[in-house]
Amino acid sequence: MCLLSGGLDSATALAIARAEGFVCHALSFDYAQRHRFELDSARKVAAAAGAAEHRVVRLDLSAAGGFGHSALTDEIAVPKDRAKAGGIPVTYVPGRNTVFLSIAMAWAEVIGAFDLFLGVNAVDYSGYPDCRPEFVEAFERLANLATAAAVEGRGRFRIHAPLMRMTKAQIVRTGLSLGVDYSLTHSCYDPSPDGAACGRCDACRLRLEGFAAAGATDPARYAPPPGDRRS
Amino acid sequence: MCLLSGGLDSATALAIARAEGFVCHALSFDYAQRHRFELDSARKVAAAAGAAEHRVVRLDLSAAGGFGHSALTDEIAVPKDRAKAGGIPVTYVPGRNTVFLSIAMAWAEVIGAFDLFLGVNAVDYSGYPDCRPEFVEAFERLANLATAAAVEGRGRFRIHAPLMRMTKAQIVRTGLSLGVDYSLTHSCYDPSPDGAACGRCDACRLRLEGFAAAGATDPARYAPPPGDRRS
Repeated sequence: MCLLSGGLDSATALAIARAEGFVCHALSFDYAQRHRFELDSARKVAAAAGAAEHRVVRLDLSAAGGFGHSALTDEIAVPKDRAKAGGIPVTYVPGRNTVFLSIAMAWAEVIGAFDLFLGVNAVDYSGYPDCRPEFVEAFERLANLATAAAVEGRGRFRIHAPLMRMTKAQIVRTGLSLGVDYSLTHSCYDPSPDGAACGRCDACRLRLEGFAAAGATDPARYAPPPGDRRS
Repeated sequence: MCLLSGGLDSATALAIARAEGFVCHALSFDYAQRHRFELDSARKVAAAAGAAEHRVVRLDLSAAGGFGHSALTDEIAVPKDRAKAGGIPVTYVPGRNTVFLSIAMAWAEVIGAFDLFLGVNAVDYSGYPDCRPEFVEAFERLANLATAAAVEGRGRFRIHAPLMRMTKAQIVRTGLSLGVDYSLTHSCYDPSPDGAACGRCDACRLRLEGFAAAGATDPARYAPPPGDRRS
């Protein structure tokens, strides 16, 4: 099973899972993200990767804080053109990966798929607490205590985070070597209404730097910079 | 914050949290349980306990296995009139407590409520993997790794399971001493259409035995046994 956001990282994690021979059940969440291009990308990426199936769970947590206030869910400005910042980014969404993994675990127990892949990365996104190796290890431990399947010995959960210690350039190189079509993926935190990436938010900058360092060209569609726009 | 199912145990856990001086945000889930009396009970229990608020999150996981097949969510027969059984009961719902706690944790981080109370119990329900002390400890550890609030030192999650090692009789005695109105609670796995408890499923039997051992009378409304019904 693979958590699939539609971004570059989870598309690469899915390609790695497929290359390792796993039949992949891809899972995405519709949780009132500010923009919906991610889910369109997730569908295309799942199909291109030959996932056995792709499910989208609609998750409305508005009754319980709605994942709080984040630049990814609310009208909080997405930072642009900044150098790598320290601390936890405004794009952090409280509890998100824990909730997503829990639901993946519940589904995984039902269908007997004990290998969960996710595209978290501790190098470029070191500010997110739920993207660190210790988080992934703690979740794996929890899953093997929480489920009847694990306790009864019918399966042992393994949480795979194959990108954890890769740089963005290594991720891009790995994905390209596995045939990932990155034109299908969506990374931008602040796309234009037609889905073009801004090229200036943290996600776009990391992505562009990754492609440049890998000696490759990002096939994503970028909006022209403001000066280039025709009136 | 207190997870509140509407049953006897979570009503008692909430009363304990209140008695310990906590302002309580109660959280229930509407996850297509077979019967809805639980949620009605949860609302009444939260109000009676003086919870600061009560939220109900609607959780539709049908796209991802829908918590699998359980006698609590599907048309699987609820066992009746049996002695205490070994193993994991058919009323086990895959991943349920992990998903519920994850969403509680996400909300708790948003509002800064780091003490999570839940009514799990390892004595009478020893068959449920996600009701054991090691599960609760593993989740607490996870929450303190997963969240920005914990990592930045703004709070430290504590998962309180005050009923963990109590017998049902001890739970009933504790609740009665704290003024819990158990007539508001709902425990039966297989109620009649008007909400009366069956008196014969595992939950009813445990509950009735608990009241009897506590020397008290269960104020819940029970359906008359089949022989007593008028045609």
